[in-house]
Amino acid sequence: MNDHADIHTLMMGLGERARLAARGLAIAPTEQKDQALRESAALLRQRKDEILAANQKDVDAAKEAGVAASFIDRLTLDDARIEAIADGLEQIALLDDPVGTKLAEIRRPNGLVIDRVRTPLGVIGVIFESRPNVTADAGALCLKAGNAAILRGGSDSFYSSNAIHQCLVDGLVAAGLPKDAIQLVPTTDREAVGKMLQGLNGNVDVIVPRGGKGLVGRVQQEARVPVFAHLEGLCHVVVDKSADLDMAEQVIVNAKMRRTGICGAAETVLIDQHVAAIFVPQLMDALSAKGCEVRGCARTVALDDRAKPATEDDWQTEYLDAILAVRVVDNFDQALDHIAHYSSHHTEAVLAEDEAVVDRFFKEVDSAILMHNASTQFADGGEFGMGAEIGIATGKMHARGPVGVEQLTSFNYRVHGKGHTRP
Amino acid sequence: MNDHADIHTLMMGLGERARLAARGLAIAPTEQKDQALRESAALLRQRKDEILAANQKDVDAAKEAGVAASFIDRLTLDDARIEAIADGLEQIALLDDPVGTKLAEIRRPNGLVIDRVRTPLGVIGVIFESRPNVTADAGALCLKAGNAAILRGGSDSFYSSNAIHQCLVDGLVAAGLPKDAIQLVPTTDREAVGKMLQGLNGNVDVIVPRGGKGLVGRVQQEARVPVFAHLEGLCHVVVDKSADLDMAEQVIVNAKMRRTGICGAAETVLIDQHVAAIFVPQLMDALSAKGCEVRGCARTVALDDRAKPATEDDWQTEYLDAILAVRVVDNFDQALDHIAHYSSHHTEAVLAEDEAVVDRFFKEVDSAILMHNASTQFADGGEFGMGAEIGIATGKMHARGPVGVEQLTSFNYRVHGKGHTRP
Repeated sequence: MNDHADIHTLMMGLGERARLAARGLAIAPTEQKDQALRESAALLRQRKDEILAANQKDVDAAKEAGVAASFIDRLTLDDARIEAIADGLEQIALLDDPVGTKLAEIRRPNGLVIDRVRTPLGVIGVIFESRPNVTADAGALCLKAGNAAILRGGSDSFYSSNAIHQCLVDGLVAAGLPKDAIQLVPTTDREAVGKMLQGLNGNVDVIVPRGGKGLVGRVQQEARVPVFAHLEGLCHVVVDKSADLDMAEQVIVNAKMRRTGICGAAETVLIDQHVAAIFVPQLMDALSAKGCEVRGCARTVALDDRAKPATEDDWQTEYLDAILAVRVVDNFDQALDHIAHYSSHHTEAVLAEDEAVVDRFFKEVDSAILMHNASTQFADGGEFGMGAEIGIATGKMHARGPVGVEQLTSFNYRVHGKGHTRP
Repeated sequence: MNDHADIHTLMMGLGERARLAARGLAIAPTEQKDQALRESAALLRQRKDEILAANQKDVDAAKEAGVAASFIDRLTLDDARIEAIADGLEQIALLDDPVGTKLAEIRRPNGLVIDRVRTPLGVIGVIFESRPNVTADAGALCLKAGNAAILRGGSDSFYSSNAIHQCLVDGLVAAGLPKDAIQLVPTTDREAVGKMLQGLNGNVDVIVPRGGKGLVGRVQQEARVPVFAHLEGLCHVVVDKSADLDMAEQVIVNAKMRRTGICGAAETVLIDQHVAAIFVPQLMDALSAKGCEVRGCARTVALDDRAKPATEDDWQTEYLDAILAVRVVDNFDQALDHIAHYSSHHTEAVLAEDEAVVDRFFKEVDSAILMHNASTQFADGGEFGMGAEIGIATGKMHARGPVGVEQLTSFNYRVHGKGHTRP
């Protein structure tokens, strides 16, 4: 399967079958899609031992390759994680079906009635790395929104993903849906990713990358089809001079330390100079107690020498670790300028009691999610009440913020006439 | 200005100034944006003679180059066209400002209130060809939606576009808005287009191409930023066996002949075999009377030898002329298959009295605009009540169908907390 011609033929075939399946899925009744999801969940539970055995092969290979412990953790399945995957499928079955929802009705003076109605996007290509659960999550979200999915998992989770994928296929077939509605690329050759990014001759409508900077960079460089951009989450928290400082302390500790490895974790805190003398030591106490390292600007370090001096790199780094960059700013405007310069447009928070400041923050900061007096760790589709999400989009086109079933749809206009001709 | 380094510096500067202007525009009050539009309209009328003189230079050069008459027509301005451009700006001033509109409010059990609010997209790059009015239309639509615009007109309309652009800039300044809110690329070097398609170092958020196949093809090949895809309009009309044939005749003649050169003009008609014996000659009579050539499948030609035999090319061609391809199909399914294979996903119409057929058409045809018993020529932002449009998007991401001010916006989530931390 390393021959380029073979990969080309293989991938083009996947694309054609996906397009055909998508035509069928677009008109599949909600109940049929939900049945496929429930059947797949049952099969996941039923085949737990097989899936764990497949996962063990992946984990053994990864350990032999000597990868980091955090990587092994993302890769490893156990009873609880398989149950969580199965439960996730059932939760998606419970969501409202977005397809067919009327979004708007326009009544024109000439009598034309124009409905704007949600439709599936078509074929969605999902490229992901080590987490095998993405196979189920992404496949199920695409299916619920009436889309065919072409999934390309990382080589590290090859056996696990295949075992999970087989449950999805068998669930589709049990519900009478086309088995090609959710396809898993059956090769780990990187050339297959290149083919997907080229769009498989018009048979991929959007690419969703789920992975680190390397993958996202390759996707942005090579993609010839639309992409749900998912950059890193370089999230900022602004402590305004009007902030309730005890609240600020609690929110920042949560935003940084609840889980340091997620994209909604805070990475930089910007503190107004008017409260810095009190708040920098207060925050240092709280963070030190949690084992968090602080890298501060010169003013921060002058106020508390437990902070190490920050370099330019620190303002540009998504640590995903127990490290926080802290800068004392002259005023709110300087905080906004800092965010405009360094933000990845994912999530930012302001801690302030001054409503005028909050209003400016909401209007002037150009990020997918803006928080007032709340932890950046709420940046999550589940916390937004969307059910599952396939990721957090940091681009501004189509989907922004959590990408759930609604964001995996498009729409069209349906014009009802009575023989109308245009004058 | 043909030196590559100069073009690079020039374009990067445009991008940086656009991004800065966009930050200001995003928070500009509606009244200020509308004032700029009205000032610009007044200046267009005031400087009519200058604009006509500039246009004469473009027209003379085009005539000397020996271009087609239709091209000269698109390029030429006169009193009425300048008045129409000025009036267009005033109409856009009258539209509702989309920025700041609350699209949804989510109340979570934990007390978080999450608003989804419309925001500008940022910086929009518009690449267009010969029509100088696009300078004003596109610049004004971007401005109304709070976006900075970088406009790149065709070399053929260079002087006309510059004269119009100067009115926009002076209007912006008169209203106290940054003059860089609407920039016109001051060179006709093709390298400048390449730079825009690369995204000017992250300073272009979306590209809107307005032009023929050559431009759209280049954009799709080279763009590294999102594009509002605007393919051709290969629009189909289906005559079901349940159609009211007199209505069908009138609608098809309008869909084809009202204006043959617009993207919503019908190009292919698919006629159910059960009504073909009656309807093919009836339609041929009506179209012949209007001077329209018909290219038909074998069954069509057998029914009426005024039709010339169609080749495979005819099913793939957007004629934009008084030519219509006609195919007799076995049944409705074959019509749907034909559309799935050949459509450019712009606009399709069905003529039918059978509601089950209409329902299938609406659900199964994957195009931006679907018409029932109405002419495809209604595919137009104005006819949809959107005010002006910058084009018709044939892609399924973000904007689909007419692209007006709302489609030139994004949104973000604004989360209102009271010190919320995530458990």
